[in-house]
Amino acid sequence: ILHCKVEHAIKIYSIYTLNACSWSCCALFVVCAVHCQRFLMSRVGEDWIFLILLGLVMALVSFVMDFCIALLLQAQKWMYGGLDSNVILQYLAWVTYPVVLISFSAGFTHIVAPQAAGSGIPEMKTILRGVVLKEYLTLKTFVAKVVGLTCALGSGLPLGKEGPFVHIASLCAALLCKFMSFFGGIYENESRNTEMLAAACAVGVGCCFAAPIGGVLFSIEVTSTFFAVRNYWRGFFAATFSAFIFRVLAVWNRDEETITALFKTRFRLDFPFDLQELPAFAVIGIASGFGGALFVYLNRLIVQFMRKQKTINKFLMKKRLLYPALVTLLISTLSFPPGFGQFMAGQLTQKETLVSFFDNRTWTKQGMTEDFNYDSHSAAWKHPQANVFVILVIFIVMKFWMSALATTLPVPCGAFMPVFVIGAAFGRLVGESMAAWFPEGINTDGIIYPIVPGGYAVVGAAALSGAVTHTVSTAVIVFELTGQISHILPIMIAVILANAVAQSLQPSIYDSIIRIKKLPYLPELGWVVLHNIFVESVIHFIFQDSQMNRSSKEQHLFLKHCFLWSAESMILLGSIERAQLQALLTQHLSRERRLEFIRDRADAERKRVSVVSTPSSEEGGQKVNHEVRFQISTEESSFTPARPISPKPLKPALKRTSTAEKNIEIPTSPHDSGIGLKNLLCARPQTDAMEIEEWEEQQLDEQVNFNSWKIDPAPFQLVERTSLHKTHTIFSLLGLDHAYVTSIGRLIGVVSLRELRKAIEGSMTVKGVKVRPPLASFRDSGTSGTSSESEATELHKLWDRHTSISIPREHQPNTSDSDEKSQ
Amino acid sequence: ILHCKVEHAIKIYSIYTLNACSWSCCALFVVCAVHCQRFLMSRVGEDWIFLILLGLVMALVSFVMDFCIALLLQAQKWMYGGLDSNVILQYLAWVTYPVVLISFSAGFTHIVAPQAAGSGIPEMKTILRGVVLKEYLTLKTFVAKVVGLTCALGSGLPLGKEGPFVHIASLCAALLCKFMSFFGGIYENESRNTEMLAAACAVGVGCCFAAPIGGVLFSIEVTSTFFAVRNYWRGFFAATFSAFIFRVLAVWNRDEETITALFKTRFRLDFPFDLQELPAFAVIGIASGFGGALFVYLNRLIVQFMRKQKTINKFLMKKRLLYPALVTLLISTLSFPPGFGQFMAGQLTQKETLVSFFDNRTWTKQGMTEDFNYDSHSAAWKHPQANVFVILVIFIVMKFWMSALATTLPVPCGAFMPVFVIGAAFGRLVGESMAAWFPEGINTDGIIYPIVPGGYAVVGAAALSGAVTHTVSTAVIVFELTGQISHILPIMIAVILANAVAQSLQPSIYDSIIRIKKLPYLPELGWVVLHNIFVESVIHFIFQDSQMNRSSKEQHLFLKHCFLWSAESMILLGSIERAQLQALLTQHLSRERRLEFIRDRADAERKRVSVVSTPSSEEGGQKVNHEVRFQISTEESSFTPARPISPKPLKPALKRTSTAEKNIEIPTSPHDSGIGLKNLLCARPQTDAMEIEEWEEQQLDEQVNFNSWKIDPAPFQLVERTSLHKTHTIFSLLGLDHAYVTSIGRLIGVVSLRELRKAIEGSMTVKGVKVRPPLASFRDSGTSGTSSESEATELHKLWDRHTSISIPREHQPNTSDSDEKSQ
Repeated sequence: ILHCKVEHAIKIYSIYTLNACSWSCCALFVVCAVHCQRFLMSRVGEDWIFLILLGLVMALVSFVMDFCIALLLQAQKWMYGGLDSNVILQYLAWVTYPVVLISFSAGFTHIVAPQAAGSGIPEMKTILRGVVLKEYLTLKTFVAKVVGLTCALGSGLPLGKEGPFVHIASLCAALLCKFMSFFGGIYENESRNTEMLAAACAVGVGCCFAAPIGGVLFSIEVTSTFFAVRNYWRGFFAATFSAFIFRVLAVWNRDEETITALFKTRFRLDFPFDLQELPAFAVIGIASGFGGALFVYLNRLIVQFMRKQKTINKFLMKKRLLYPALVTLLISTLSFPPGFGQFMAGQLTQKETLVSFFDNRTWTKQGMTEDFNYDSHSAAWKHPQANVFVILVIFIVMKFWMSALATTLPVPCGAFMPVFVIGAAFGRLVGESMAAWFPEGINTDGIIYPIVPGGYAVVGAAALSGAVTHTVSTAVIVFELTGQISHILPIMIAVILANAVAQSLQPSIYDSIIRIKKLPYLPELGWVVLHNIFVESVIHFIFQDSQMNRSSKEQHLFLKHCFLWSAESMILLGSIERAQLQALLTQHLSRERRLEFIRDRADAERKRVSVVSTPSSEEGGQKVNHEVRFQISTEESSFTPARPISPKPLKPALKRTSTAEKNIEIPTSPHDSGIGLKNLLCARPQTDAMEIEEWEEQQLDEQVNFNSWKIDPAPFQLVERTSLHKTHTIFSLLGLDHAYVTSIGRLIGVVSLRELRKAIEGSMTVKGVKVRPPLASFRDSGTSGTSSESEATELHKLWDRHTSISIPREHQPNTSDSDEKSQ
Repeated sequence: ILHCKVEHAIKIYSIYTLNACSWSCCALFVVCAVHCQRFLMSRVGEDWIFLILLGLVMALVSFVMDFCIALLLQAQKWMYGGLDSNVILQYLAWVTYPVVLISFSAGFTHIVAPQAAGSGIPEMKTILRGVVLKEYLTLKTFVAKVVGLTCALGSGLPLGKEGPFVHIASLCAALLCKFMSFFGGIYENESRNTEMLAAACAVGVGCCFAAPIGGVLFSIEVTSTFFAVRNYWRGFFAATFSAFIFRVLAVWNRDEETITALFKTRFRLDFPFDLQELPAFAVIGIASGFGGALFVYLNRLIVQFMRKQKTINKFLMKKRLLYPALVTLLISTLSFPPGFGQFMAGQLTQKETLVSFFDNRTWTKQGMTEDFNYDSHSAAWKHPQANVFVILVIFIVMKFWMSALATTLPVPCGAFMPVFVIGAAFGRLVGESMAAWFPEGINTDGIIYPIVPGGYAVVGAAALSGAVTHTVSTAVIVFELTGQISHILPIMIAVILANAVAQSLQPSIYDSIIRIKKLPYLPELGWVVLHNIFVESVIHFIFQDSQMNRSSKEQHLFLKHCFLWSAESMILLGSIERAQLQALLTQHLSRERRLEFIRDRADAERKRVSVVSTPSSEEGGQKVNHEVRFQISTEESSFTPARPISPKPLKPALKRTSTAEKNIEIPTSPHDSGIGLKNLLCARPQTDAMEIEEWEEQQLDEQVNFNSWKIDPAPFQLVERTSLHKTHTIFSLLGLDHAYVTSIGRLIGVVSLRELRKAIEGSMTVKGVKVRPPLASFRDSGTSGTSSESEATELHKLWDRHTSISIPREHQPNTSDSDEKSQ
């Protein structure tokens, strides 16, 4: 059917085109393109074309970006190397270069699309949860993210490209969707777009690390609560294609001989590790768990500190680029190779550092005599004055706070890669210690198998990045990155232990950012058991008794929906979108109708009588039983902004703080139902007073055709005895905003995402019995500072707005900006 | 709170115990155990204890079973080797041994628990979908499955242990749940148990292959439609622990030196494959796709053939063990090494075959002079008369039909491993051909990298098993099985291509079995686009107009739920479980009440008047507006058995073919509502006629306390314009049986799982536009034979029954048994 329609549309379109352009080039091109596209669609299916295109584009983006980043880093090395005659000039070159790049990145991002700053994974998580954050999926954001990320990574600061890549891939998918919907087809469909976004997240990780499987799993773990196995297939397909193209490009570019892993390791296969080394791996896992939690805590602490210190804050907000520049200056000064940088391998880039960590030679040959030939990368770890252990410890400590600080900069950047490097360093430290402790390997049956510190580095990298992101799939990413799976059990054990520790101490870095930015997201249940707390303890009771209680209603959160109920029997009949109701009301009280009214004023008296009284006498008299009284309640979001908002020109001219309920009478016969409206939440231009109001009153009493309303007759209903656990599941599964709570068919209240979140967070700290591992108090004290509920954030405003205009940032109050700076 | 309760219960329990046993040993033990358990729970959390226990038990089961299977296989080899003086004796020993084992396995399974036969994955898929199949999770089934599987695999037939292991792990989890609910706590919770079953499936695969990641992913792909990321973590934890213990046991048993992969490969790391070999891998993928589809088709064909041939069928049903014995005889005769077996490496076990395929040496050294030293396993592929290629082709062809045939035996067995071996053989064949074609490797820049046929075998194994099961995660399983990930891109490409081809031709082996067994499951959407078909085209309209249409209702499927609606305004008020309604009715018309009635017959006249008339005059007169009329509709499952069923004693004595609707009047004030019942679907013992009927009529008009009913006031509602795609998603997400379709609050119909399934299958073949890949007609013709809807199967009866009594199998009609034989 669809096929025929498309064909028909094409015919019509082509005829029109032909007439208009009279056999012009343009028409030929269009016909050609349409034919070509039709052929492809019929053969392969639109989805697969879409996924292939997405994979291709992302592979190209990733490759080109990597190429540019490598160029930028090389330029810095070249400058640094060329100026080796003068240390001061060298220092200036070493420091100025990243400062300029980061400042440019921050400035560019700020001017083009401020929402491009940070990792993007928290926002994607929120979008996939069902909340529309339109600004985050525009072309502007794409440009800002790609350019900003390239500059930021080219600066050599400890920043990652993985989180931003998830965002870039999603942007790509959203833009492709828009592009392909030009050709018609199924791309207008909302749920389909969400599915494509989920696949895009996988592509993002996949083509960033050439890790298709790990990418799919990581994106699932990080962005989803419930996952459709359907999408899994899509993600695999697109991510594999993307990773394949990404690596093939490297082969074509003569960087590689064939397709291999990004950080290939060469550990021995026959005896990768001894069973008695497992405790050491477990120690790495547990320590990484604490380290990961500390990293998240530190990151949040820095954001909060910057936000709370008002004098600093005020100063920094004025000079927007000063903060990034200062941070960059600090970090690059400390890593200046002839200075302090010599104690922390400052001259190595992230990639070189990782390659040296994953090397399968041991750096400390205490028992042996030969001093093996250090290659260029490993040489950085050899210092005439200091021990390898000291250098590694300094590296870990310095990089730890540097990474936590750098990821708060308002540039597009992720935290995965820096954390990965720190984890590898820690693993290497443990591995080198083990190698020093057992120089001949742990004894097993005569054969000497020396300890491989590189294996420990791999384990540490997976464990720490797993702890920070609360994912297990970092293990898979590590296998794909290194091209070896021989350490699977140590890695799995370390990752699981790290996760267990980190999850009991802190939220994941992404959840932490979600809290800092106050994105509308439901927390994970995690360890909480809520089977015996019921939803009735959470709901907002609309009817305290049968009578309406107006005051209680006004507190309530309804962002986009109003609801209708039968006034007599309290039976919920449906809900309607607020925007639609507004549109209907403005249309009903529009200028045209007003003019018409003035024109027809002579007939007004008669008309009024006939309209208002006739239906009620005709139907109300005879079928009194059949009449159900509807009530429309439109209520206000309870997070009213704490500070004044700058005027927004395109905001529909509706008063947003008024609350009103109206009785609307309609007959129950479903097909020719009418509805009487009274004035509600409609801000009229305050020109005349009494007469116009009277007219409006009368207009709202008129009958309106009920069928043209897009009423959702089955908004989600819960029973009052539903457990919070089940409620959480249903909300997560269906991506609900709010649900109505009924008792034997009668509406008794409503529960919103916000209340549910509060309740779950509350029972996590108060009622949860088996929730808390021993160190949980640390977690509570860390998070309580952030949840000052009254503070309105930029994002809530964005969310509330339906049009996608970017507000000039200078009009915004000061503190709102620090939200986006946090990642 | 829970903790306190447990403590309290323990105190009470211990006091009771102490009194009863007077400080006996038993009491001490209980107190000890309870204390110990309480300590652990407070420290770790019940979930984790459960998962650790599950992992431990399954690892032990897997290890012991592997040990026994190895012993059994060794015994056969020993017998065969010891009798090498006489070929006839040798043949008898070679053939008798598997026949005895398979017959014992089939007999044991049949006697102890017939539902243990087959793979178990289809049943787990159905159970995780939300359908209760209680018989499949009992201790008997566990015993039958473990013993039967050990014997079946010990026979040396091409059978797998992976599918049954998923079932065994689930059984283990269900039994552990039962065991731990003895200690109280949260194990009674239904949804928690489902989550644990999902984790158990991962453990099953994980400890079978020592592949935790692949296990989790495979179990997700095979059993779930929507997956909670929460469970993912659980699965990882348990599967890793289980795999770890499984491999540690091997080390302790001195089988292995350290923890490594099961089928470790030693391919070169630096240059695993050339980019120009990729077309060959793609060919393997596409061919495997066709092969996988053919395997599923062949398997189903055999089952259908056995079922349709009535004379064969009749004979085989009488002699239940004859079919397995004959099949075993045929297969082992053909693989007798001195006979035809010499052309298909008959003397190798499955494990040895795989090891020889994954060997990294090339068998055909055409360009080279040296004839390398064949080791014991690879020697089987060298035949003085025949070429290696011929032997490989014979092996593939023979094993193909043998595996398809063997997996239809009524013993616990899976199809994964046999298919895996065939795929490896096919890959090896392609690899050896490539090696013969390019004896010096494909030329790249001077260095000679010879082709590794073992790599092709790995690719083939992953591709064919992926095609048969419709999963991508076989790739991950293969990495974990071989311990090498260097071939990741070829494997991913081959697996994805194989999946694309196989999914367009045939359902997966598990979906095929679901169809054959007619398990209640919703098909996957797959390639189908159903965004523009709406649910209104599927629903069963209850009210053709405002008047009730009785005849249309009777066709409808309601297995467990009845529903209540307001008769006047057609507003759905709630649904009630059929069982509860039945219980209420039988209690209401029970023997006690009848006797009481006879006793009070003197007062009967007065009572009848007061009961029937008083409420209606009192409330009906004054509050006529407030009264909502309820209707209870209880309808009949439409798959009435086609042949007579043997009488089931415990079946509630309710007539199942009668349909009735009753008007029940209740006042709408929610707290003291009453309900009047009339006679519905209640089969009365046919003793008296008029008097009793009159009494019952009157009883049903009496008021019943509405609050004691467990009414679900919010059964799931859909709008009539919901797309089929969304409907499918919601059904899958929430595991629904049926949903009510409403239009502006009014109930207009109902859509059940069955109708939705039919509609989706229908639009897959008829309306789906972009659905069909070129070869789809093959798929349709293959499946149309199985969907004869009128045929009632064993499973539907099982499902329909609420008690878990095993029916004596001999009373069953003949054809019903072949359902369980199919896998």
